[in-house]
Amino acid sequence: MIDVLIEKIKKTKAPIVVGLDPMLGYVPEHIKDKVYRERGETLEGAGEAIWQFNKGIIDAVYDLIPAVKLQIAMYEQFGIPGLIAFKRTVDYCREKGLVVIGDVKRGDIGSTSEAYAVGHLGRVKVGENEYAGFDEDFATVNPYLGTDGIKPFVKVCDERNKGIFVLVKTSNPSSGEFQDRLIDGRPLYEWMGEKVSEWGRDSLGDGGYSRVGAVVGATYPEQGKILRKLMPRTYILVPGYGAQGGKGADLVHFFNNDGLGAIINSSRGIIAAYKQEAYAKYGDKGYADASRAAVIAMIEDIDTALPH
Amino acid sequence: MIDVLIEKIKKTKAPIVVGLDPMLGYVPEHIKDKVYRERGETLEGAGEAIWQFNKGIIDAVYDLIPAVKLQIAMYEQFGIPGLIAFKRTVDYCREKGLVVIGDVKRGDIGSTSEAYAVGHLGRVKVGENEYAGFDEDFATVNPYLGTDGIKPFVKVCDERNKGIFVLVKTSNPSSGEFQDRLIDGRPLYEWMGEKVSEWGRDSLGDGGYSRVGAVVGATYPEQGKILRKLMPRTYILVPGYGAQGGKGADLVHFFNNDGLGAIINSSRGIIAAYKQEAYAKYGDKGYADASRAAVIAMIEDIDTALPH
Repeated sequence: MIDVLIEKIKKTKAPIVVGLDPMLGYVPEHIKDKVYRERGETLEGAGEAIWQFNKGIIDAVYDLIPAVKLQIAMYEQFGIPGLIAFKRTVDYCREKGLVVIGDVKRGDIGSTSEAYAVGHLGRVKVGENEYAGFDEDFATVNPYLGTDGIKPFVKVCDERNKGIFVLVKTSNPSSGEFQDRLIDGRPLYEWMGEKVSEWGRDSLGDGGYSRVGAVVGATYPEQGKILRKLMPRTYILVPGYGAQGGKGADLVHFFNNDGLGAIINSSRGIIAAYKQEAYAKYGDKGYADASRAAVIAMIEDIDTALPH
Repeated sequence: MIDVLIEKIKKTKAPIVVGLDPMLGYVPEHIKDKVYRERGETLEGAGEAIWQFNKGIIDAVYDLIPAVKLQIAMYEQFGIPGLIAFKRTVDYCREKGLVVIGDVKRGDIGSTSEAYAVGHLGRVKVGENEYAGFDEDFATVNPYLGTDGIKPFVKVCDERNKGIFVLVKTSNPSSGEFQDRLIDGRPLYEWMGEKVSEWGRDSLGDGGYSRVGAVVGATYPEQGKILRKLMPRTYILVPGYGAQGGKGADLVHFFNNDGLGAIINSSRGIIAAYKQEAYAKYGDKGYADASRAAVIAMIEDIDTALPH
């Protein structure tokens, strides 16, 4: 799947991910009005409104981009109906040929991580049959529990040609509280980066990149530069561009000299673009077209920043 | 809710949690046969089999124990039907008067942690209405992202009288890989323990314990002893007893002198007791009675180990 991702990045010339992390506040009133009339202001109504919102954006941008990232928390907050919207979105994105990253940040002791890996990337056995529970292409994973929480994910990735992105240096303001603490003179995120590189060493795709990737926030470009060198065969998923403050120029050092090695996520900046002054002309009803315009602007911003 | 938990622990004289972490391999054949005949060997069949299995155990043990812990991964691996079984189990346990700990190990950047907190412990707004997505009483939380991933959980705990247990020193073999690394001469888990204490300082219940608890594995009793002293007002959820190797005698130092401060989880050792030689006489059909006998034995084991 890392090879499929790379191929799509090359084809679209867009090392970007659209983050389908919907909040009800982002969903235009005309969608909510219609759905709530049919289903009421219920969890089912919320799930349906989010799904329709997502579908509009996917239809408007799928030809421009290689991948989407779904932050499952934004769905999980609506309970089962929210997770049904998550699953519908995963399936629809795959139908449209997009690589789907489940931003689930799971991770636990070995036997439990195995269940998460199976549920999100693999197939679970029921009697004689096998089923995919959620069936994303990639999942994000939290490494606080160490190697035996990661290995079950790597095993499923190898068996089913899937991938993971392991949290190394996250984009949020307090990420340094633990991740930057010095251990034998080096910050924890460097030790983590080395481990990610080690975990993925035997899981290389044909393009030379590993199925085991890393998450490093766009908000920490200096750390990104160091981690890029520490993990040469690791694809880096970079959140924090746009609404969280990261800019195109900050992203240069997340990439390798081959122009590959990083994929930049933007969520709010794309899916709620119509609420920004720059895209206000599209109006509520043109929210999906506003997202398309924002994707094009993001691709240009990153392209301008990268050396050619 | 921490006060409700303590009151129930005192009433049952059982500082224990039964971990409802079902695997299909634990579900007796007579349940699976019946369910699969009705629903096929499908994800729906798996969810229903797990739910019926859980219900049998809950009915057999609910009067003996204060709380249950549901490892959501074991449900999530079956996709939406698995999560429906999770939700049914949460609701049924609450109906039976049990405190429900969602072992979800969520944690993310601030806005995302807020969605998880709302989904598992709070209520989400849909138009003019509010709904609980999953509605556990406690959730476990992963702290790798630092304070701004924790605060939204604490906020919901304070508003809705719920609680969290933050991962400090986990029970798995490789937990030391990062958690034991020395920072300024002290292991990361000690720094984490201090942070947990700090995060919960302003969220004390009437009994003097905080709504912000910690997870420390029974498999690391020496570390438990140190952490007990570092976090005097913190309730410690202790996994790893039984199948993972922790014994009653290992648990003494997780408790305070008031006999409170810790709650010990056993999952496989209780819910799959009928597969152990000691409880084989109950047979497959007596699996729930075997679980009851195993709960009684566990309460005795821990009671014997604690000073009176």
